[in-house]
Amino acid sequence: RHTTVQLAHGGGGRLMRQLLEDIFLEAFRSPALAERHDGAVVPLGGQRLAFTTDSYVVTPRFFPGGDIGKLAVLGTVNDLAMAGAKPLYLSAGFILEEGLPLDELRRVVASMREAARECGVEIVTGDTKVVDKGKADGLFINTSGVGRVSEGVSVHPRRVRPGDAVLVSGDVGRHGIAVLSVREGLAFETPVESDCASLAPLVAALFEAGVEVHCLRDTTRGGLATALNEIALDAGVGLVVDEPAVPVDESVAGACELLGLDALYVACEGRMVAFVPEPQAERALEALRRHPVGAGAACIGRVTEGPAGMVSLRTRLGGQRLLDLLSGEQLPRIC
Amino acid sequence: RHTTVQLAHGGGGRLMRQLLEDIFLEAFRSPALAERHDGAVVPLGGQRLAFTTDSYVVTPRFFPGGDIGKLAVLGTVNDLAMAGAKPLYLSAGFILEEGLPLDELRRVVASMREAARECGVEIVTGDTKVVDKGKADGLFINTSGVGRVSEGVSVHPRRVRPGDAVLVSGDVGRHGIAVLSVREGLAFETPVESDCASLAPLVAALFEAGVEVHCLRDTTRGGLATALNEIALDAGVGLVVDEPAVPVDESVAGACELLGLDALYVACEGRMVAFVPEPQAERALEALRRHPVGAGAACIGRVTEGPAGMVSLRTRLGGQRLLDLLSGEQLPRIC
Ligand SMILES: Nc1ncnc2c1ncn2[C@@H]1O[C@H](COP(=O)(O)OP(=O)(O)OP(=O)(O)O)[C@@H](O)[C@H]1O
Ligand SMILES: Nc1ncnc2c1ncn2[C@@H]1O[C@H](COP(=O)(O)OP(=O)(O)OP(=O)(O)O)[C@@H](O)[C@H]1O
Ligand SMILES: [Mg+2]
Ligand SMILES: [Mg+2]
Ligand SMILES: [Mg+2]
Ligand SMILES: [Mg+2]
Ligand SMILES: [Mg+2]
Ligand SMILES: [Mg+2]
Repeated sequence: RHTTVQLAHGGGGRLMRQLLEDIFLEAFRSPALAERHDGAVVPLGGQRLAFTTDSYVVTPRFFPGGDIGKLAVLGTVNDLAMAGAKPLYLSAGFILEEGLPLDELRRVVASMREAARECGVEIVTGDTKVVDKGKADGLFINTSGVGRVSEGVSVHPRRVRPGDAVLVSGDVGRHGIAVLSVREGLAFETPVESDCASLAPLVAALFEAGVEVHCLRDTTRGGLATALNEIALDAGVGLVVDEPAVPVDESVAGACELLGLDALYVACEGRMVAFVPEPQAERALEALRRHPVGAGAACIGRVTEGPAGMVSLRTRLGGQRLLDLLSGEQLPRIC
Repeated sequence: RHTTVQLAHGGGGRLMRQLLEDIFLEAFRSPALAERHDGAVVPLGGQRLAFTTDSYVVTPRFFPGGDIGKLAVLGTVNDLAMAGAKPLYLSAGFILEEGLPLDELRRVVASMREAARECGVEIVTGDTKVVDKGKADGLFINTSGVGRVSEGVSVHPRRVRPGDAVLVSGDVGRHGIAVLSVREGLAFETPVESDCASLAPLVAALFEAGVEVHCLRDTTRGGLATALNEIALDAGVGLVVDEPAVPVDESVAGACELLGLDALYVACEGRMVAFVPEPQAERALEALRRHPVGAGAACIGRVTEGPAGMVSLRTRLGGQRLLDLLSGEQLPRIC
């Protein structure tokens, strides 16, 4: 048992789950928290409100395809979308380290504005704190978001059923590799751009197509494999995933091989998994693929009775192996 | 002109106002932000929602009368109350530094739970990030909050009118002195406890008493003097404040003398100013004083036509001086 905070406590894996259970869920004990979903859905005067929060601490702050500001807006918009909500308003809380160049702050803020405009959300409140040099890492951003959940919509892990199809909205692992390439100063043959993008239009497309969406999850920290493990655990089901069906771009696969990483555990910032009734899987894929962000959507597996929490991977070679929750994160760290 | 972030950019004074205007308000351009109030009030499906955010970076994390966890809950609850809302739900975002003792985290989380229970708010969503040792200061907490604004309620700077009475809910400066005493290892004759407390019951009491509240502001960063300057600027009015009427406890006055501080600029975390029509001032004071947190409420001045943004202090000796917005913060820094 650890007595101090470890990096792995933030890695999205087993150790983080334990920390959440032992310390936060145990203390706060709210029914909304107990759902362990990307955003909470709570009543507000006859409406249903979705509410979510994330802090962004990524280094480097600028990477191919995005920066910390774009992420801070899209990540929170995506968590609202994963709760089946229409994202409406964001807050923006900044912790600035003394000495941060103001021009860098301006660039980050401009890209937040741009991302908010594209998503049709409004940044309506904020906060700014400055800490002494050496007490932060340049710039941390927290965004919280609220949105509205339409009547009849109910998207969360408990709705996942044996027989459901498991869809992914596109190829996985780009974001983590893009960040890593800058941080480690790697030059790949084909440069990899982050996948960071809003998932709200994809979710809207599923609803518009009349798909009865059971659950959604963006595949952020810990990547696809971690998202699948979380859902399997929280829904109390098993999952069977077909490895060759999981889209991984050649450039990402190449970088992963070079770095000794498993692409299935590498973070994305514009990808999600969707759990839908099997008979609606084709319709759902069509709806996703009509949108550029969902062009690479694929069905990658299905939900089984169990064992609860177990995700098994049918490998390329026809074998089967456990796609386990890691303890922390793969090395080198990405988030 | 500064090219990098200065500590004073977070001090609540002139430099922070400039940063907000030049960088954040300029980029985000939302009508709700332009109000510059403690919380935004926005429509959500026929309701009015209040939404606010704050990050908490205080050192030391534990001080007489409270800790960073209690502050994180009460501070955000108070900003919702200042918008005239009933606080309902909070988010809790943690940035943890590798190596933080888990027992310390547990204490902070327990005191958040306790404060939330006392305020009747629910922590419904959260986030946890871990950063490398040396890239944070142990523990930063962001809480965002949502609440509901009842019909007919409209509390913001633009409603302040010449002739309004200016009330303060109790003696000022305790929080800053309590934090400073631990940080600087000072032992005062009488130890000073932080005033940190929920202001929501006081606000409810004003509404219940039928007081037509024009504006509220908690006197946090920069203390009473800064809060008054902000309102004067944003409402485009002048204020006249009667120095002898401002309640300052003897222990705080003593500590301020020792440290060369002006109590009017020292942060509180459980005090507010209220702007109400002069004929309702007595009724408002009675309502406030009925509650322990408001027992020391007093009328300290009135609103004038202008000059807009000017706060003048009638001193103990019968003179008059400008109670100005500081550039940053008093030294030694408190927040
Ligand atoms: N980075 C930011 N982006 C957008 N708006 C901001 C930002 N920082 C502050 N604001 C806005 O500026 C106003 C003043 O913020 P400030 O944080 O000083 O208020 P507060 O939370 O009441 O005070 P404190 O932080 O001392 O508790 C608020 O309307 C807030 O929404
Ligand atoms: N400190 C915390 N206190 C309370 N609940 C928390 C805390 N940290 C996380 N949670 C809850 O745990 C669940 C998982 O959080 P997590 O941050 O992993 O989700 P996410 O935001 O979708 O992922 P990411 O942060 O990688 O974008 C959510 O339901 C979240 O509300
Ligand atoms: Mg998520
Ligand atoms: Mg998230
Ligand atoms: Mg604030
Ligand atoms: Mg305030
Ligand atoms: Mg505040
Ligand atoms: Mg999160």
